[in-house]
Amino acid sequence: MTRTRPAACLVVAGVLAWVGVAVAQVVEPARQVDLLLTGGAVVTMDAAGRVIPQGAVAVAGAEIVAVGPAAELGATVAAATTIDTSGQVVLPGLVNTHTHAAMVMYRGLADDLALLEWLEEYIFPAEAQTVTPEFVRVASELAALEMIRSGTTTFVDMYYFEEVVAEVAAAAGLRAVLGQTVIQFPVPDAATPADALARADAFIQAWAGHERITPALAPHAMYTLDEPTLLAVRDLARRHDVPVLIHLAETEDESRIAEERHGTTPTGYLDAIGFWGPSVLAAHGVWVSAADIDILRRHDVGVSHNPESNMKLASGTAPVPAYLAAGIDLGLGTDGAASNNDLDMFEAMRLASFLHKLQARDPRAVSAGDSLRLATIGGARAIGLESEIGSLEPGKRADLIVVSMAAARQTPMYDPISHLVYTTRGDDVVTTVVHGRVLMRDGRVLTLDETAVLAAARRLAVDVSEAVRPAAR
Amino acid sequence: MTRTRPAACLVVAGVLAWVGVAVAQVVEPARQVDLLLTGGAVVTMDAAGRVIPQGAVAVAGAEIVAVGPAAELGATVAAATTIDTSGQVVLPGLVNTHTHAAMVMYRGLADDLALLEWLEEYIFPAEAQTVTPEFVRVASELAALEMIRSGTTTFVDMYYFEEVVAEVAAAAGLRAVLGQTVIQFPVPDAATPADALARADAFIQAWAGHERITPALAPHAMYTLDEPTLLAVRDLARRHDVPVLIHLAETEDESRIAEERHGTTPTGYLDAIGFWGPSVLAAHGVWVSAADIDILRRHDVGVSHNPESNMKLASGTAPVPAYLAAGIDLGLGTDGAASNNDLDMFEAMRLASFLHKLQARDPRAVSAGDSLRLATIGGARAIGLESEIGSLEPGKRADLIVVSMAAARQTPMYDPISHLVYTTRGDDVVTTVVHGRVLMRDGRVLTLDETAVLAAARRLAVDVSEAVRPAAR
Repeated sequence: MTRTRPAACLVVAGVLAWVGVAVAQVVEPARQVDLLLTGGAVVTMDAAGRVIPQGAVAVAGAEIVAVGPAAELGATVAAATTIDTSGQVVLPGLVNTHTHAAMVMYRGLADDLALLEWLEEYIFPAEAQTVTPEFVRVASELAALEMIRSGTTTFVDMYYFEEVVAEVAAAAGLRAVLGQTVIQFPVPDAATPADALARADAFIQAWAGHERITPALAPHAMYTLDEPTLLAVRDLARRHDVPVLIHLAETEDESRIAEERHGTTPTGYLDAIGFWGPSVLAAHGVWVSAADIDILRRHDVGVSHNPESNMKLASGTAPVPAYLAAGIDLGLGTDGAASNNDLDMFEAMRLASFLHKLQARDPRAVSAGDSLRLATIGGARAIGLESEIGSLEPGKRADLIVVSMAAARQTPMYDPISHLVYTTRGDDVVTTVVHGRVLMRDGRVLTLDETAVLAAARRLAVDVSEAVRPAAR
Repeated sequence: MTRTRPAACLVVAGVLAWVGVAVAQVVEPARQVDLLLTGGAVVTMDAAGRVIPQGAVAVAGAEIVAVGPAAELGATVAAATTIDTSGQVVLPGLVNTHTHAAMVMYRGLADDLALLEWLEEYIFPAEAQTVTPEFVRVASELAALEMIRSGTTTFVDMYYFEEVVAEVAAAAGLRAVLGQTVIQFPVPDAATPADALARADAFIQAWAGHERITPALAPHAMYTLDEPTLLAVRDLARRHDVPVLIHLAETEDESRIAEERHGTTPTGYLDAIGFWGPSVLAAHGVWVSAADIDILRRHDVGVSHNPESNMKLASGTAPVPAYLAAGIDLGLGTDGAASNNDLDMFEAMRLASFLHKLQARDPRAVSAGDSLRLATIGGARAIGLESEIGSLEPGKRADLIVVSMAAARQTPMYDPISHLVYTTRGDDVVTTVVHGRVLMRDGRVLTLDETAVLAAARRLAVDVSEAVRPAAR
């Protein structure tokens, strides 16, 4: 329905222009909007893949009200705030479908280790000794800063004290799907799965109906939860109608465990117990068979592909071309910064294209356009928010970013979509808008005190170093 | 020998400090140097892998004269220019062992295509119609700008009109090994291989003995040259004692051609005709057997690994762990920006680690330290310049860069080497020094007029677009 609006605007604009020539005095007043981004290429990511070379996007309140050529919008709207995007590229905000935001505090703490050594000697001890609500607050603010700076407008999170992540994301202006972790063993915010479920219940009720924060449940994985807990999570999620976020088939070890314990794949096991449903988002999905992909498709499960994490941790290569061919709702994620080591979705896009070209032995596989779709509308579909975000179309929420293309490494520019994926960095994002609110303008973050956030993180890093000191040489 | 200098300085400093307390008037004057970078972590990349947390590097003329703790150097040298590197990281300038610098003008011109379509419908027509000395000048200045900005201090180039690349590199202050292309078919600067050899001969004589520019020969590949030409190149290179740069075993097609024509591998064929020698640098080396690696090792051939190009063009995965195990002099390269799409050696490092961890199914493979070695001292060895560059040690040329670690995505920092490889971008380089000359300071490039270079490149891009228009949709 909303797709017809731009065409209608063009007709109105045309008539106004004609009338304007004939009787200048009777020109109708321009439509009043709050924000107009105008002059630069607009990469809409709509169904037609429309790119408007000199385009504009008009925003009223939290909503996109018009997308079109700059000249036409300039004639039909009057904006309280106008941002000149000449020479830049405007696109939908990026959707990071899998992260553990607070783990930015562990980035670079330990790398290049065997998985068990990394987890058991560094990450688990650090988490056991340092994860508190205050840690999660400082760390999530650092992550929010990094995401706003690098063009992520929606993130999907799995961690502890998720109510603190919610407070930080809400205040920073980000959109988020936030999953309270449920896991079989004691963790910083819950001694038992029952405690975690109770925390999750309270969290969901506290944040239900928020315009940008979607509370969710995050059962860790099939190998770290027993069947009664997995089903309790499923039932609680259905009762509240909230998303479920789970790690799936990330490593070959997980496949081996599923085979040993249940005689099937991780995907097959979760199918057998009736876990799957359309509000589930599965992260990684590396070790899946054709039958597994069919299970995911039948239950309309979203999948988050994390190429950098899968490479750095040597987990394996997810069958992205097969997911795309099957019509799976596939998004991109960075994973936590302990295993990446950053939250830059532009890197995730570039790596998705690079990795699957190599894997398929075909340079045509997973084009720049494919990766950009995964990071925008694909991610939106994977989390069931495609009617609200993921493309620049009238009626959708105004979640958008502006990318500079002025650097030497971006010169010349023949095709903005190629450049967005193959030469752009998160740092090229100059302006970030979520829900109609400008979170960063011309490189200045408006919703966080950057200096204070960085200083707090550096102070906290001392505690983290102490926590892992016995393990380090 | 030179390694003993810092220790001697410490003794002198200690004595001076003691004398200073006793009889202030007779303190000896500090050693006069031209440039002191002091305060930040110094990652030396020396044989011991020394990292000095608060370090300093002193430069006199083109040479590094001291490397040590900031407090000690501060007491022993007096510098004409001091650069405060507190909170930053100082490391050797990066060595890009394989590029076609001028191809920055074709970045993003055509992506995601089958190899033949990409070459025959885009790159070859564009080159045939646009490559002139003036094109190479504008394009090489753009590339030089990008390299200085992203911390590459030495680049190894294969292209046409290489004498123009030499002029640009010399003026911009970069160090370079520049190979004049020799190929069997007509190209923009030579109608025949004999023409190309004559051009190369003149080029080598014109630039012999330059302090930063090493002229070289660049026979394109074993499948684009006949045996007499390959041997003529070898002989000319031996006569002038200059390096030889060649593409080797980049694609499976090249292996197939070698097998069909010569019944062996590309490496084996070049061995059989007596082509190999210690001054040869082979780019890519993807399709090599254990026997091929042994051939390369026996002849002390350097190899340039180009992970991004190999992934994006779906060429295959070079056996980097096997090269390292065999003790091959291995460097990293970006390849040309038409197939990458940039010249950022930090990306090359990150991808080298990511790719080979995944390929080896081992997260310990190709550590951050390994990739940093490839990009510095490894590249220096691959081009035979290890006595001059590749590490920060007294007696070596002062080729070094300073990297900011202030960004949110770099916070906190537990380990500078992890951060240099896993979270740093070329854009984080703030200061670039080559041969003792400051080419960029605090983000301002001093040896090129950035605005003019970018404007000229954008004007030239119009011609490039025209040249490929018939091929585009």
